[in-house]
Amino acid sequence: MKAVTFGEIMLRLAPPGYLRFEQAASFEAVYGGGEANVAVSLANFGVPAAFVTKVPDNPIGQAAINEMRRYGVDTAYMLKGGDRLGIYFLEKGASQRPSKVVYDRKLSAISQARKEDFDWPAIFSGADWFHFTGITPALGDSVAEAVLAACQAAKAAGLTVSCDLNFRKNLWTSEKAGKTMAQFMPYVDVCIANEEDAEKVFGIKAPDSDIVGGSLSHDGYKAVAEELKKRFNFTAVAITLRGSISASDNNWAAMLYKDGEFHFSRTYPIHIVDRVGGGDSFAGGLIYAMLSGFAAKDALEFAVAASCLKHSIEGDHNHVTVAEVKTLAGGDASGRVQR
Amino acid sequence: MKAVTFGEIMLRLAPPGYLRFEQAASFEAVYGGGEANVAVSLANFGVPAAFVTKVPDNPIGQAAINEMRRYGVDTAYMLKGGDRLGIYFLEKGASQRPSKVVYDRKLSAISQARKEDFDWPAIFSGADWFHFTGITPALGDSVAEAVLAACQAAKAAGLTVSCDLNFRKNLWTSEKAGKTMAQFMPYVDVCIANEEDAEKVFGIKAPDSDIVGGSLSHDGYKAVAEELKKRFNFTAVAITLRGSISASDNNWAAMLYKDGEFHFSRTYPIHIVDRVGGGDSFAGGLIYAMLSGFAAKDALEFAVAASCLKHSIEGDHNHVTVAEVKTLAGGDASGRVQR
Amino acid sequence: MKAVTFGEIMLRLAPPGYLRFEQAASFEAVYGGGEANVAVSLANFGVPAAFVTKVPDNPIGQAAINEMRRYGVDTAYMLKGGDRLGIYFLEKGASQRPSKVVYDRKLSAISQARKEDFDWPAIFSGADWFHFTGITPALGDSVAEAVLAACQAAKAAGLTVSCDLNFRKNLWTSEKAGKTMAQFMPYVDVCIANEEDAEKVFGIKAPDSDIVGGSLSHDGYKAVAEELKKRFNFTAVAITLRGSISASDNNWAAMLYKDGEFHFSRTYPIHIVDRVGGGDSFAGGLIYAMLSGFAAKDALEFAVAASCLKHSIEGDHNHVTVAEVKTLAGGDASGRVQR
Amino acid sequence: MKAVTFGEIMLRLAPPGYLRFEQAASFEAVYGGGEANVAVSLANFGVPAAFVTKVPDNPIGQAAINEMRRYGVDTAYMLKGGDRLGIYFLEKGASQRPSKVVYDRKLSAISQARKEDFDWPAIFSGADWFHFTGITPALGDSVAEAVLAACQAAKAAGLTVSCDLNFRKNLWTSEKAGKTMAQFMPYVDVCIANEEDAEKVFGIKAPDSDIVGGSLSHDGYKAVAEELKKRFNFTAVAITLRGSISASDNNWAAMLYKDGEFHFSRTYPIHIVDRVGGGDSFAGGLIYAMLSGFAAKDALEFAVAASCLKHSIEGDHNHVTVAEVKTLAGGDASGRVQR
Amino acid sequence: MKAVTFGEIMLRLAPPGYLRFEQAASFEAVYGGGEANVAVSLANFGVPAAFVTKVPDNPIGQAAINEMRRYGVDTAYMLKGGDRLGIYFLEKGASQRPSKVVYDRKLSAISQARKEDFDWPAIFSGADWFHFTGITPALGDSVAEAVLAACQAAKAAGLTVSCDLNFRKNLWTSEKAGKTMAQFMPYVDVCIANEEDAEKVFGIKAPDSDIVGGSLSHDGYKAVAEELKKRFNFTAVAITLRGSISASDNNWAAMLYKDGEFHFSRTYPIHIVDRVGGGDSFAGGLIYAMLSGFAAKDALEFAVAASCLKHSIEGDHNHVTVAEVKTLAGGDASGRVQR
Amino acid sequence: MKAVTFGEIMLRLAPPGYLRFEQAASFEAVYGGGEANVAVSLANFGVPAAFVTKVPDNPIGQAAINEMRRYGVDTAYMLKGGDRLGIYFLEKGASQRPSKVVYDRKLSAISQARKEDFDWPAIFSGADWFHFTGITPALGDSVAEAVLAACQAAKAAGLTVSCDLNFRKNLWTSEKAGKTMAQFMPYVDVCIANEEDAEKVFGIKAPDSDIVGGSLSHDGYKAVAEELKKRFNFTAVAITLRGSISASDNNWAAMLYKDGEFHFSRTYPIHIVDRVGGGDSFAGGLIYAMLSGFAAKDALEFAVAASCLKHSIEGDHNHVTVAEVKTLAGGDASGRVQR
Repeated sequence: MKAVTFGEIMLRLAPPGYLRFEQAASFEAVYGGGEANVAVSLANFGVPAAFVTKVPDNPIGQAAINEMRRYGVDTAYMLKGGDRLGIYFLEKGASQRPSKVVYDRKLSAISQARKEDFDWPAIFSGADWFHFTGITPALGDSVAEAVLAACQAAKAAGLTVSCDLNFRKNLWTSEKAGKTMAQFMPYVDVCIANEEDAEKVFGIKAPDSDIVGGSLSHDGYKAVAEELKKRFNFTAVAITLRGSISASDNNWAAMLYKDGEFHFSRTYPIHIVDRVGGGDSFAGGLIYAMLSGFAAKDALEFAVAASCLKHSIEGDHNHVTVAEVKTLAGGDASGRVQR
Repeated sequence: MKAVTFGEIMLRLAPPGYLRFEQAASFEAVYGGGEANVAVSLANFGVPAAFVTKVPDNPIGQAAINEMRRYGVDTAYMLKGGDRLGIYFLEKGASQRPSKVVYDRKLSAISQARKEDFDWPAIFSGADWFHFTGITPALGDSVAEAVLAACQAAKAAGLTVSCDLNFRKNLWTSEKAGKTMAQFMPYVDVCIANEEDAEKVFGIKAPDSDIVGGSLSHDGYKAVAEELKKRFNFTAVAITLRGSISASDNNWAAMLYKDGEFHFSRTYPIHIVDRVGGGDSFAGGLIYAMLSGFAAKDALEFAVAASCLKHSIEGDHNHVTVAEVKTLAGGDASGRVQR
Repeated sequence: MKAVTFGEIMLRLAPPGYLRFEQAASFEAVYGGGEANVAVSLANFGVPAAFVTKVPDNPIGQAAINEMRRYGVDTAYMLKGGDRLGIYFLEKGASQRPSKVVYDRKLSAISQARKEDFDWPAIFSGADWFHFTGITPALGDSVAEAVLAACQAAKAAGLTVSCDLNFRKNLWTSEKAGKTMAQFMPYVDVCIANEEDAEKVFGIKAPDSDIVGGSLSHDGYKAVAEELKKRFNFTAVAITLRGSISASDNNWAAMLYKDGEFHFSRTYPIHIVDRVGGGDSFAGGLIYAMLSGFAAKDALEFAVAASCLKHSIEGDHNHVTVAEVKTLAGGDASGRVQR
Repeated sequence: MKAVTFGEIMLRLAPPGYLRFEQAASFEAVYGGGEANVAVSLANFGVPAAFVTKVPDNPIGQAAINEMRRYGVDTAYMLKGGDRLGIYFLEKGASQRPSKVVYDRKLSAISQARKEDFDWPAIFSGADWFHFTGITPALGDSVAEAVLAACQAAKAAGLTVSCDLNFRKNLWTSEKAGKTMAQFMPYVDVCIANEEDAEKVFGIKAPDSDIVGGSLSHDGYKAVAEELKKRFNFTAVAITLRGSISASDNNWAAMLYKDGEFHFSRTYPIHIVDRVGGGDSFAGGLIYAMLSGFAAKDALEFAVAASCLKHSIEGDHNHVTVAEVKTLAGGDASGRVQR
Repeated sequence: MKAVTFGEIMLRLAPPGYLRFEQAASFEAVYGGGEANVAVSLANFGVPAAFVTKVPDNPIGQAAINEMRRYGVDTAYMLKGGDRLGIYFLEKGASQRPSKVVYDRKLSAISQARKEDFDWPAIFSGADWFHFTGITPALGDSVAEAVLAACQAAKAAGLTVSCDLNFRKNLWTSEKAGKTMAQFMPYVDVCIANEEDAEKVFGIKAPDSDIVGGSLSHDGYKAVAEELKKRFNFTAVAITLRGSISASDNNWAAMLYKDGEFHFSRTYPIHIVDRVGGGDSFAGGLIYAMLSGFAAKDALEFAVAASCLKHSIEGDHNHVTVAEVKTLAGGDASGRVQR
Repeated sequence: MKAVTFGEIMLRLAPPGYLRFEQAASFEAVYGGGEANVAVSLANFGVPAAFVTKVPDNPIGQAAINEMRRYGVDTAYMLKGGDRLGIYFLEKGASQRPSKVVYDRKLSAISQARKEDFDWPAIFSGADWFHFTGITPALGDSVAEAVLAACQAAKAAGLTVSCDLNFRKNLWTSEKAGKTMAQFMPYVDVCIANEEDAEKVFGIKAPDSDIVGGSLSHDGYKAVAEELKKRFNFTAVAITLRGSISASDNNWAAMLYKDGEFHFSRTYPIHIVDRVGGGDSFAGGLIYAMLSGFAAKDALEFAVAASCLKHSIEGDHNHVTVAEVKTLAGGDASGRVQR
């Protein structure tokens, strides 16, 4: 099995510990982004994974490539060129103080990429799965065109296509998102979303959810999933359910709608180390499980356990093994020392 | 609006993370103190704030000035002279292990200051509010004289005066504190205290509180506030209510007694990053809210939300904006990532 | 009073914070091991304590000696020679992700030590207590012989002997452990174990405990203690009871069976800073309390409070004073700042 | 005396120590830029100094303001708005490996500023000196227009105007630079340049210099200065002379041409800590000395000593006092410990 | 072109800065070793490079693989198995205090490897060059057998073979080294050595060199090279010439004997950042240059410039590009900032 | 052999690297002082060494004790009591920027100590050597009395007494120093001084030295030594000769006058890591060599080599072994890696 993801990788700059931006005399640096994170997850699970993007031809772009190589991702299609590497500044929240992200991604190399930059048939050679998120087309019209070309090529080559809706209000409006994303949906088999995305992108709202307050209604999510399925005829719809108690503590679960059945995972009460990339690690887990032929409920539990573990790991990436995820999914959440 | 605070600023030296003093090979350094912290809070809220003190004429004293300047405080009246900058060593506690403070403030420049050092009419020119705490006069008789002169000048100039009782048993006895503080009370409009101060300074005890055990009685605090009001005719009395579950987890709330009414804030369950300066951030929030003409209940909720956020921030200072406090006071404590 | 412990000291290498091994660009270094940790606990309590071991004659071995000296342990019998200092790599877990230990202790100097290396009568001169754990004999047959010689010499010299069963599956099998440990038991007065040791070493199982799930049955532990007492005629049997909620949160308590009575300590809900050495700090507390003539229940509460505090301290060692432990054992778990 | 500078302030991100970009897991962060650096130098010398720029209205922009405030610079005219704060990545060289700068300053807030943003008469109220460098107009045509307006307003208000030619090949061509800079020269009194600038901007070449090889000819520099004076009728021309032995060791000196006389400073052999901002610290020293009415030779020696010391200080800024500079300019370069 | 190297990769643990082992509370961690370093050099030069070794199947072994992947080395033949990853502790010297290495490499996975573990024909498929050093066979007889098999397979496949004699007295005696290494020499085309190796391995001594004193005689080295060539009929012999002035300052040059001609490189006076891997970076540069068909003198200057730059880079690896090396080899050693 | 030293130990707080005080967000912490440093030197050379002082009874005082214990010093006579531990802030200089020390030692526990605190006969039991410096009596009259008592007791017990004149202008005047120190000289056998001390304490000036300029005249120093010997009848007079080229580079040598002969050591050109404690390490080396019965010239060379190495070591203490010193004294200053 082999998977391909396509999107942006950014330099993430975060003050050490719980310092606020204004207090920081240094920034911890990692390189991440939604689709890059999924590729690393898959590589850590032993799935050959390629990440497709464009980075500037300078040492910062090279460092982004190196980070992906380090964790075993195929970087042959991390193209070089363009102005700069996108940056995001992350301030880690705690207790009632939320984490804060300042994006500085304008003029990023990938946002300047064009459809012609990518030889999709070559990229997809030997691949089984293609994954992208709503962030990629939001980067610019030319990138959106490249996404469409990728979807078409993926379908033509017989790949399964997954899309994490991942709405980002800083990048585009709901209106623009809805129109653009709708183009890709015919090619998508597996649709992934969090508790807000379906509404923000396609105007599909869970009737009685209260996201800020953290209450989650199973029935509401079922309705959303059914509506998504109805509109776009997805093979599977997965929705992550985050209950935000505080910046330090979250509840985490997900639902999978497949073959007419709704599966709800167990809910993990999480003490957060690093919450960024939580959704991506769910996508990574789900893709791995589906590629491996897990039953729907098992696939869901694997994906949720994988992303639960992500919240305990610094950085955007989910550095866990299949064995570690299976232990947790299998019921051992005790955190006892492994000697 | 413009505010002035008067007191000591110290070099705070803390081992990294949760190391004990004996384990530390380095100390993280910030500069803080009760009244300095209030000045920074106010500056962060956009209120022109001046901090009055004395620091030694050496690079350590200069660094204290720089830290205040950095956050926008007017440092024109941080005088130079005297022997040394006071120091306090802070060991951060966790779970059942309490935080530990070792004071090393003898011979500090401010403790050697004299009434004549400060030109209060000039200092208060254009100001609306004067704030000090019980720590300032506890530093020495000559500083207490300066406090009295400040109170008189403030009143003469029509400022509102607030005082945080802030009893420190290492600096003086309850007897000395009671006698000294009583001199200033006629000038004080707003009295701020924590759950112990009223008893330690003026012998006014909440009948049925158990501070160590963490139980708090609303009726007890009402009684304390009424007695304070009766004795000193304050315009407002505010008492913070800390429920210490452990060094890692506290409950935090406050009461405001004003115009004959008792207001109790919501209670925040806090996962602590840095607890020092919690009370000061309450005072800063309350002064801001009162200067801005908030209704009593709103002022209280603003002050409590501000100080709740402080517990999530490293160092003595409360680095939050008005907008951040209002979001929390408005009910969003979910800590969801702000993008 | 004076105590002697015998065992291995290792270099512990841990990534900073919550980084995984693969993410680490540096390792924090401390030196610890079961019996070394007990010696440091005792020295911190003011008990003259000697640690007996063998370290390589190189700067890494010297650093291990220095660490023990730093905290006041008598290092006259930390012999020099052999190939290398054992190492263990520690990755700190969080939430549902368990801590992970990678041992790299083969060819360690102490594992190469022989009975003849240690002059036990000289070592025990003036001593009242001898402590070892099941790890020491597990290091190799020649070390096991040294343990036996130590036990015999300790008894001959009238010392009290304590043993923490401390089963390590990486070092030996249950079968080998049971056979070897049984040789030492006739010399042991005080037997210490965690919730698994008795079963793993001597096949004595608490009937209805579920360790991974974190449920603990008082009756089950009573049965284990009685059986241990029956088989080996110990003066006292102490069993620690860890309830693993997650890698971040544990419940911690213990039982002491002495003079026919079962004592159960209070249970501490712990927010974990560093869990390694938790059991050793219990042993250290118990030995101190017994050496000081505490009543059984008081000794137990002292030992549990001591080890509760250990969980809030970085590194293997328990850096707390008798006064700090007594404050907690006396009921103040509020973690309020000590000024 | 009071001085105003105008230009860009950037976030500088540098790997710790001598790590290369690709090795870095964190970046040390300071905020600097040519004109900001001059303002800090002057503030450190006790000269009231204001820095005029535009930064984005986000925490990164605020941090830049805070850094300037911290060192006593007047930040009232650091406007807020625009897309982003410019960034430059700095890799510190050593021995034969040169330092490396990767600029990421496109779309910076200041580059988007327009003439109308700045109320120069208000800004220059009470000021004696205006300083800018060739970097500011290179940021964009609209900024160049603002520079021209500033020059005109400064002259109208009777200020002395200094300009550091500071050619940056990444920002514009020599042709564009020459044409643009020529517009400002009629308003400039004091022209500052390094060994390359005069040639790169105005095509004025020192006949026999070999910059890469590090040989410097006094006569060549005299010729350059005379030609500059002839063309633009400057009151004074200062040229810094850097002899690059390696990335670790430089020789440093300067020439001042004033009132028809050439003054050459002593040459300092420097072991480099941080070379960035070296030229700015020379400008800062020269402006201070001229504002203070130093004789030409003394002003030159002060400026060179100030900038010599800068090379021993981390970051872009020159954190030295007048007394420290005078000690070195006075001949004590022994570096003996000051107790 | 494609190259393969074979040897050990170790975890290198070094105290930060200039701390001695006994002072260190942490160790900086990188992964390196003679042949691994050469592979990274080549990858950084754009040469497809594979590193062949064996590491333990645990996270520490995985981290070693990741480090190689990060810099673009093919790790398909970094096998997994065996006891542990070898470690070396490095204390960085300064001035008159030498750097100090404590090896802890017994029982390393690669030392336990056997001839059968490596499928050389597959490994060498498509490769042009094979490189090993004298360290590899010194790890144990079974590894020496694997080296012999590799040499034979390399020759059979038409690869060029290079060997860096690299004598390590801690691993074997000169006698054993001489006997073992002699077996491989018939397969070796390019022999690389430092100023001591030829004597220590084959008893060939430069008549009048004084290594400790730092004097180097060109004639002596010529004699050594001629004798090596005579004995083993190498195509080329390269000898590095290190003049140790102090732990902080070295002179660095090399000689290449090829086609009957002696070439001496320029000598670089180096201010040392990290001296470890200096020889390996020379080998890497030489292999690149020879693979690229450089003339002998150019190849030598490239190799010496590459290794000169290595001394300015932290860690074992040489992170420089071909362009950077060529700039230095071309004569620009000024270290001027590259913007 | 056994030695005793008496004096102050301080907490030393230094910004990391070359940061100035005003830039520091943390301070590296070690514990040192003239006589403490000598004790550590001796312990590192294997000489049983006791350090006598008084530290406050708080965790900071305990940390000072721990640091001494860590390196093997007998701390039985580090008494507890008094107000605080003295502090000194150290800013490391570089190139032309000198290092800077800010003392904050008023009210230190040792300065409050009295003659009666120290039981000298018990302290000197079994000892051969007593060492103190001019700093100890400068701390206060009561400490000076204790020094006198120590000298008398030391002589009575037959110890050799050494004194490093070590004049500190911040602690007393030359006049006071001269008068006080003169009292102790009759008991002193070995007098140690730097190039300034003899003049500052006893008005004995080297006729033609220029300390700031770095020129040193052998004849001048001979004259000083002879005069010292004449006045106080010392057995030996040692003078260190520091040539300050810059804060980064010093020349270092010394002279020993004994038995009517003048011995001059070789001169070491030193690239400085940490210069503080340089003189103390000379004293430590000299005492070791004299206690060990070295010939005068050998003792001198040992002492100078020991202190040369100190300059390459972070912190106040000299962490070197006898073997390391002998290697350097024996002529190997090449700094080649020790494997």
